[in-house]
Amino acid sequence: MKRLTLKFGGTSVGSIEKIEKVAKIIKKRHDEGNEIIVIVSAMAGVTNDLVNKSKSISKNFDPSEHDVLVSAGEQISCSLLSGAIIKLGVKARSWMGWQLPIVTDNNHTASRIIKIKTDEIIKYISDGGVAVIPGFQGISSEYRITTLGRGGSDLSAVAIAKFFKTDSCEIYTDVAGVFTTDPSIHKKAKKIDKISYEEMLEMASLGAKVMQPIAVQDSMLNDIPINVKSTFIKNSGTQITSESEINNKKQVTGIAYSKNDAKVTLVGVVDKPGVAADIFEPLGKNNINIDMVIQNTSSDGKKTDITFTIKRADLTKAMKLIKKNSKNLKYKKITHDKKVSKVSIIGAGMIANPGVTYKMFRSLAEKKINILAISTSEIKISVLVNENKTQKAVQSLHKTFGLD
Amino acid sequence: MKRLTLKFGGTSVGSIEKIEKVAKIIKKRHDEGNEIIVIVSAMAGVTNDLVNKSKSISKNFDPSEHDVLVSAGEQISCSLLSGAIIKLGVKARSWMGWQLPIVTDNNHTASRIIKIKTDEIIKYISDGGVAVIPGFQGISSEYRITTLGRGGSDLSAVAIAKFFKTDSCEIYTDVAGVFTTDPSIHKKAKKIDKISYEEMLEMASLGAKVMQPIAVQDSMLNDIPINVKSTFIKNSGTQITSESEINNKKQVTGIAYSKNDAKVTLVGVVDKPGVAADIFEPLGKNNINIDMVIQNTSSDGKKTDITFTIKRADLTKAMKLIKKNSKNLKYKKITHDKKVSKVSIIGAGMIANPGVTYKMFRSLAEKKINILAISTSEIKISVLVNENKTQKAVQSLHKTFGLD
Repeated sequence: MKRLTLKFGGTSVGSIEKIEKVAKIIKKRHDEGNEIIVIVSAMAGVTNDLVNKSKSISKNFDPSEHDVLVSAGEQISCSLLSGAIIKLGVKARSWMGWQLPIVTDNNHTASRIIKIKTDEIIKYISDGGVAVIPGFQGISSEYRITTLGRGGSDLSAVAIAKFFKTDSCEIYTDVAGVFTTDPSIHKKAKKIDKISYEEMLEMASLGAKVMQPIAVQDSMLNDIPINVKSTFIKNSGTQITSESEINNKKQVTGIAYSKNDAKVTLVGVVDKPGVAADIFEPLGKNNINIDMVIQNTSSDGKKTDITFTIKRADLTKAMKLIKKNSKNLKYKKITHDKKVSKVSIIGAGMIANPGVTYKMFRSLAEKKINILAISTSEIKISVLVNENKTQKAVQSLHKTFGLD
Repeated sequence: MKRLTLKFGGTSVGSIEKIEKVAKIIKKRHDEGNEIIVIVSAMAGVTNDLVNKSKSISKNFDPSEHDVLVSAGEQISCSLLSGAIIKLGVKARSWMGWQLPIVTDNNHTASRIIKIKTDEIIKYISDGGVAVIPGFQGISSEYRITTLGRGGSDLSAVAIAKFFKTDSCEIYTDVAGVFTTDPSIHKKAKKIDKISYEEMLEMASLGAKVMQPIAVQDSMLNDIPINVKSTFIKNSGTQITSESEINNKKQVTGIAYSKNDAKVTLVGVVDKPGVAADIFEPLGKNNINIDMVIQNTSSDGKKTDITFTIKRADLTKAMKLIKKNSKNLKYKKITHDKKVSKVSIIGAGMIANPGVTYKMFRSLAEKKINILAISTSEIKISVLVNENKTQKAVQSLHKTFGLD
């Protein structure tokens, strides 16, 4: 007998028919003799609808009342799912966040879970009942409803797995798992069977489609292996686990890419301490998110070039802010490129394989793809290319690293 | 400074615009220097939608989970209204039923309020805050969400008025108040300024459109005067209060009528103890609701006629049940009339005015309306007439008793 955490996302419970399907999956796992704790998101669309209602009252809707409002979404899905499980003849009941309780800090709309009381549910599941818990919700020390922020149900699932010491944490979603690259731009993309937490985090949007990065990080910190599965297709999914668990001879696990990026280069910046901060502080204060930053060692110790990427929509604003700030910043000229794309290869395997870097560059060169900038981390190498080369680059790298 | 209970029904908060209008009404009452506790129903349509969802999973959806589900409706309206009040610069916050708590019995889907903890809210409103409480919700001694059944928000309002000893209990709704008769069948129907609890209860559907009968009864038992008002039209509404408060020289307060009734008469029933029970027990056990029952004293002490009315939709079933039961029941014959209507005059004033009865019958006779049966209580006289005479009867009586 195992104790399982099963988490179902919003699309998995997006209609009554889907809720009934989820109930059958739960019954099956229960009939196999497992103790089961279910975490459920709001039905797809419900949270957006509630948030829109609050926004039409006020753009600055009171955060405490916001949490009361949106937590109703999980209350609805949770009770419907419990009823559907009971309908199948399995003992089940819901516990709201305040009822358990799931204690969080007082940071409304983006709370963090501090503690979960477990005894009542442990008794219930050891008596053969299925416990159904809403994701996303908690209660503060001030006895008010809190929520964990968007995608918080993944965080709830990891916290439940941690506090209840469950044998597994299974994330049921509408995709089959994590893929080697985006199937929409490369048909040969394959599902990854095992991926490390770090790789998952570096996979950026490829991974985030499947599980919230902050929840991946939480599971990494608590060493909780995650199984991502499809609610609708039978297959083995993707296991997210520590590197040591992965016996993977592949150098590269996946190929990620970004969309709608723009590049800015400051040429001939006076190279002195604090110059990077001077450039990025006004951008950060104006909510412009910086992605890559590349700065080369200056050849003469006096001047250097700094390149960074931002979302294309922020380009005009960023250029203005830098020019406005030109009294403090000494540089020779500023250039930009509106249409660039970041293509990355990710793989824990590359740490032990020094040949990966040149293979990547060779692969791109053979396809006559010009590299505009390069940035690397331990398990990821990213290059900037012209946007119209993105698909070609992804396909080329996917083949080069044996993922086809 | 007064302490007010203000209750807003589902149509009063049926859209964001309406919620904003309600927030303005609350702000106005708050700015007048009152302490305010608001009770709010779910937005019109939301409860039905949730109930339909549960029914599409199971006709016998688990009652505890049903309460978790449907209470989400008031959670949504409550938080939206709180946010809208805060937006207007007035301090406000919501308390869910479990948060206060509003303690009920364990009778899921039809609970009764036992106790409400008041100290936290009394402190809050005396500090100038507006407390916003969902109607309909409570929490049981088993620490599970309960609901009071359909229209339970009126019960919540009366309970709040009682436990918080508020100076008034105001029911805001989408009608202007209680009318002397249904304006849709008689244009001369007028709003009643003051009506006694008893009259309100006897007004049947005319009163129930405005306030749940069980909540009227609760306010009568606790001697809590109710003010029914329109959320959308400025006028003084209808006050529901004890008879002693009403200085009303009118004999008749209102004219009510029923729709879709059918009449059954058992002729020549053997008159012995228990015979009425023998007739009605099988009907009751089959969920057939009996309205009027008329039995005359038997002229010979041996046989009598028994007439009763039921909803027309139940007629076929009722006839079958009685015939099936004919071994136990001794009667000469059974007759029925598919299309009858009950027309009633209601008025606490009629107790002291013996002339009311003959006036009613004379009025109907002048219009050549045949009376099929008569039944009376202290403050109500009902007659059965052919359904096609209903409107004529209502109009005639409305005029006779000076209500035009």
